[in-house]
Amino acid sequence: MITGHTRLIAHLGVPTHSFKAPMVYNPWFEAKDIDVVVVPFGCEAEDFGALLPLLFRLRNIAGALVTMPHKVAAVALLDEASTTVKICGACNAVRRDAQGRLIGDMFDGEGFVRGLKRNGRAVAGASALVVGCGGAGSAIAASLAAAGAARLSLYDRDAPAAERLAARLKQHYAGLAIVTGSNDPAGHDIVVNATPLGMSAGDPMPVDVGRLDRTSFVGEVVMKHEETPFLAAAKARGCATQVGTDMLFEQIPAYLEFFALPVASADELRALSRIRY
Amino acid sequence: MITGHTRLIAHLGVPTHSFKAPMVYNPWFEAKDIDVVVVPFGCEAEDFGALLPLLFRLRNIAGALVTMPHKVAAVALLDEASTTVKICGACNAVRRDAQGRLIGDMFDGEGFVRGLKRNGRAVAGASALVVGCGGAGSAIAASLAAAGAARLSLYDRDAPAAERLAARLKQHYAGLAIVTGSNDPAGHDIVVNATPLGMSAGDPMPVDVGRLDRTSFVGEVVMKHEETPFLAAAKARGCATQVGTDMLFEQIPAYLEFFALPVASADELRALSRIRY
Repeated sequence: MITGHTRLIAHLGVPTHSFKAPMVYNPWFEAKDIDVVVVPFGCEAEDFGALLPLLFRLRNIAGALVTMPHKVAAVALLDEASTTVKICGACNAVRRDAQGRLIGDMFDGEGFVRGLKRNGRAVAGASALVVGCGGAGSAIAASLAAAGAARLSLYDRDAPAAERLAARLKQHYAGLAIVTGSNDPAGHDIVVNATPLGMSAGDPMPVDVGRLDRTSFVGEVVMKHEETPFLAAAKARGCATQVGTDMLFEQIPAYLEFFALPVASADELRALSRIRY
Repeated sequence: MITGHTRLIAHLGVPTHSFKAPMVYNPWFEAKDIDVVVVPFGCEAEDFGALLPLLFRLRNIAGALVTMPHKVAAVALLDEASTTVKICGACNAVRRDAQGRLIGDMFDGEGFVRGLKRNGRAVAGASALVVGCGGAGSAIAASLAAAGAARLSLYDRDAPAAERLAARLKQHYAGLAIVTGSNDPAGHDIVVNATPLGMSAGDPMPVDVGRLDRTSFVGEVVMKHEETPFLAAAKARGCATQVGTDMLFEQIPAYLEFFALPVASADELRALSRIRY
């Protein structure tokens, strides 16, 4: 129940209609009597730069979740950015420290990495192919690097986008081996589709499924369907897979830690969630 | 349940801890599947002028409730102010019209007037004493004038405050008889305490209770106790009375109308309310 004591997590983006966070966080907060509520803020792009700092001057602000189209604009408003934010050039979580400074992080890739570990896959020393070097792909690549991946293959239809991501990763992870220019999945421990392919019926596969190692772990960012044709094909080939919504639930504990709130497991969050498909 | 479709009523003030509106409106919205939520915004005085207009640019804003210390500052941000706002120099409700203009009204006095009518008392043609010409007293005086009171006696320890309110009332209600300078309740159909007297043990009575007509209707803005010593004394004398929380519940339907939301009666709101004393 919202009262005058309730603290806010502002969920900023536009349009807000597809937001899922309120239906994931709020049931957890209710179940544990945590007096915090996630509230959608349908903020226009041109207002974000003025609104975010003002929200962080509210006495009852607990944090902000930042989504489209504000993730890049958020970076310029931070006093302190995580390495992942610097690599991605994007930020999706903001909190205020005791001095009032704005601290930003980016957890879009953290959910993927936590899901891998949960499935018993080691990231340290692994080789991964990330297809799509936009926001989601950059975040996943940065989180894989942070978790100790040894080799990243980066591919984007827009080749310079992959090159730019490779250069930013190199600045922060000098020991990481990075190759660009191929979406051949053969020889990778981890293969992830970070493109929108799979959103629409008839989309081509993001990689040649016939070249997937049967031991590869295959993941996906598309959340529109519980299982995309790509994941179905990988599974049919014998690969272990992780659906897009796994990434969603696996990353929430990371946000809760970031906001210094009591942490639920991904399973607890999923059981309480009121998301309906 | 809050989703990405939920619209916000921002309840702006500081501190927020004593806010009651979330526990009154939200149970009604839940009971009727109205996808709107009242959320506390602990906004500092120096940020209000920047924050309010930005909140009204959110796609999912449904309105704002404005309380201490922002009621006066809100007036300058309006594109259109009601007569009551102009008289009070204060505004406690803001909505956006179809053209994006900010429309403000002030309902602090409306609850008192609705409560009078509910108790079978006519305001049209009545004579009323308002003790205390600050925010609450100004609002009640303005609402009594709007409802057709014939004569207002205004009293404040700070005599010029009563004179200023009288002058503002005269500008908008030329036919209204106004006297100032006395808090003698004798001869008034309606007597209202709009001072903080009654908040603390040992406060003096706002008027000489021995001079109250037994036919007077006596009301109160102090909400700290369910019944103040003043109301208890008036009741003992035989007067009909209205407690502070009656004003609270009676005014909510006026806000719901203002925000173009489905309207509940004061009784429905009170039955659903989760306010705890």
